[in-house]
Amino acid sequence: MALEKKATLLIKNIGQLITMEGLVPRIGKSMSDLRLIENGGVAVAGDEILAVGKSDLVEGQSTLAEGCLVIDAKGMVVTPGFIDPHTHPVFSMTREKEFEMRLQGKSYMEIAQAGGGIRASVRDLRSTPFDILKEKTKERLDRFLQYGVTTIEAKSGYGLSTESELKQLEIIRELNQTHPLDLVPTFLGAHEVPDEYRDQKEKYIDILINEMLPAVTKDNLAEFSDVFCEEGVYTVEESRRIQKEAAKLGLQLKFHADELKSTGGAELAASMDACSADHLVYISEEGIKAMARSGTAAVLLPGTTFSLGGKKYAPARSMIEAGVPVALSTDCNPGSSYSESLPMIISLAALEMKLTAAEAISTVTVNAAYAIDRQDIIGQLKPGYQSDITIWNMSDYRELPYHYGVNLAAKVIKKGKLVANN
Amino acid sequence: MALEKKATLLIKNIGQLITMEGLVPRIGKSMSDLRLIENGGVAVAGDEILAVGKSDLVEGQSTLAEGCLVIDAKGMVVTPGFIDPHTHPVFSMTREKEFEMRLQGKSYMEIAQAGGGIRASVRDLRSTPFDILKEKTKERLDRFLQYGVTTIEAKSGYGLSTESELKQLEIIRELNQTHPLDLVPTFLGAHEVPDEYRDQKEKYIDILINEMLPAVTKDNLAEFSDVFCEEGVYTVEESRRIQKEAAKLGLQLKFHADELKSTGGAELAASMDACSADHLVYISEEGIKAMARSGTAAVLLPGTTFSLGGKKYAPARSMIEAGVPVALSTDCNPGSSYSESLPMIISLAALEMKLTAAEAISTVTVNAAYAIDRQDIIGQLKPGYQSDITIWNMSDYRELPYHYGVNLAAKVIKKGKLVANN
Repeated sequence: MALEKKATLLIKNIGQLITMEGLVPRIGKSMSDLRLIENGGVAVAGDEILAVGKSDLVEGQSTLAEGCLVIDAKGMVVTPGFIDPHTHPVFSMTREKEFEMRLQGKSYMEIAQAGGGIRASVRDLRSTPFDILKEKTKERLDRFLQYGVTTIEAKSGYGLSTESELKQLEIIRELNQTHPLDLVPTFLGAHEVPDEYRDQKEKYIDILINEMLPAVTKDNLAEFSDVFCEEGVYTVEESRRIQKEAAKLGLQLKFHADELKSTGGAELAASMDACSADHLVYISEEGIKAMARSGTAAVLLPGTTFSLGGKKYAPARSMIEAGVPVALSTDCNPGSSYSESLPMIISLAALEMKLTAAEAISTVTVNAAYAIDRQDIIGQLKPGYQSDITIWNMSDYRELPYHYGVNLAAKVIKKGKLVANN
Repeated sequence: MALEKKATLLIKNIGQLITMEGLVPRIGKSMSDLRLIENGGVAVAGDEILAVGKSDLVEGQSTLAEGCLVIDAKGMVVTPGFIDPHTHPVFSMTREKEFEMRLQGKSYMEIAQAGGGIRASVRDLRSTPFDILKEKTKERLDRFLQYGVTTIEAKSGYGLSTESELKQLEIIRELNQTHPLDLVPTFLGAHEVPDEYRDQKEKYIDILINEMLPAVTKDNLAEFSDVFCEEGVYTVEESRRIQKEAAKLGLQLKFHADELKSTGGAELAASMDACSADHLVYISEEGIKAMARSGTAAVLLPGTTFSLGGKKYAPARSMIEAGVPVALSTDCNPGSSYSESLPMIISLAALEMKLTAAEAISTVTVNAAYAIDRQDIIGQLKPGYQSDITIWNMSDYRELPYHYGVNLAAKVIKKGKLVANN
């Protein structure tokens, strides 16, 4: 039976077509269910997936539109375009000196005195012109795309003033409109307490609630609100207060939680029906149970532990066993994890968290979509879903974690268009 | 004063030109001496470096040949092309299933029974046609080049029969002639004991000495001889015997030493004036002293520890303090470390061995050249040296370890020709 629409893109002879159709989110054992079709094919009409199935069958059903792009995958692996659900991509100054100082044993204080730390990024962002910031951010988006990623969540949080937070969110909006990558914006005004309110946190929280949040939501500049809930940053009580106001204004919730200590951030996120809680290196047993009950996604960031030279990784296996929907992300940012490569993160998750390749693929497709509330549009190769597709230069998907530190994305397709050809 | 020859390539406006001129090899504190020129320029005539210095000066001195390629580096970093002194690139079958089994806690025995391990690679190599092997190897060489590497050492060792060892070395020779990357060939017939001589190691050593080594040297198929000196593979005594014969036939020596246990491999290498001893995770205090005295290069392979999910890395800092010439390598191979990215290895060396970015650059340029006895030709940007040059998409060389898991090589030049343009 012929398909209803003409195909504008046909990918045939796919060695392993990983569709990820089925359960959303993938929890427990279902994370290993890739819905893998051997010798598969995909037909696309514009920005929409038309058909997936055996290569011959899909080809037989397809009527090719004029100028239809036909790609012979020659036995390679195809997955949904990867999704990165936690990034801080809007910055200019990189912080490589701080990285080296940290590895040489310098303390946080010494690094701060030498001009490092998140507040250094805040100073830099405030003083960097819009267009330069946008250009630097764009380079990172290009790199995400080259590494097989087609959608990222992108946070503000280096401004910490109404003006500078809006600057970042506007850059995210403009790039979302002009760059092939999709960006899902998150307001993170509560990333730190800015220098000028160091001893008046209450006053900053007032500005956050009464000035920033209304300004952000008035212009629809964010879908999510995030808070760094951690000792020395925002307490559970403060985080709850901020997020309550954000929810009232229609934002969905995310939390930086339990990264450095177990402070009840996961429990708070679950109790507020947050879309995700992220980091979770020190999540408590109770926090795991609460997140499993609420269905809050756990966005894990092994690159951050790795890049800080740490040894303790989030307890991914315990979370998976408890039924928490687990996603993975780069945490791409200039301080604690500068990488745009989700495949690199998959290698780390395999080696340090004992995730299998199949589980890891679930975390960056269907579960990452769930962590940013896009599960009805992306994360699967299914008729009607967005045609975001990555073709990988490998014949077995298990090569992803194993062949590490290199780019194995061969071709990346965003909304039906070939946007990277490595 | 004008230069003697006309320039066929001019690179100008280099933010940080890292020439690595000076001490060979770099030991101790001299490893941090990059001979860095700010706002630098490089002039090249064919396969030879003509001049390095301040951009204006080099440009002023240069007479451009017709068709001269002029590259504006726009403030980026330039280094000598990186050198990887320890790789096993000739294989067809990848072993990703074994990688996953190992992370799930499967024993060596279970993996072997499921068809894994080095002997699986031997079976596969023996049965794979020459041209297919060559094509698969070529793909890896392309990737090395893309990641900023211009020379690799390449070992045999998956054949373990005269015919199959020669097959690999002939592939290495053909690729060295046809591919832009330079390959330095090493005979590693003593990589394992093949299945058919499992209980007759002596007989295999006889074949190694009396059949393989003469065949390899007769056709000049190798410059180095390497032996896996380790408990359960070749003892110190057996290794010495094999390497003595190799040396008699004019081969220089390398050793896989002290990877899994301290067995005196480093001491043996030093006592035989080996060019390098590699791995060295369990090197003894005495071994470190002996290598410092003999000037034997230590080729360290942090990717192997990483990719095996291990925690113990070679004691790089102790070796540096003791004055051992330290180099780094990918160990690119299908079993224990599948990566072609030296930048990835630099990130691991920074995080796990506490090497600074400057030290790490020394390890993959001048010291890696020393580890393969090419220190008079490559590893430095110095008039008369080979024009192997990498331009990095960064303004500070310290970005190399910090910005991890991605490819920051912008342009790669081999013997004066642009061979990768990322």
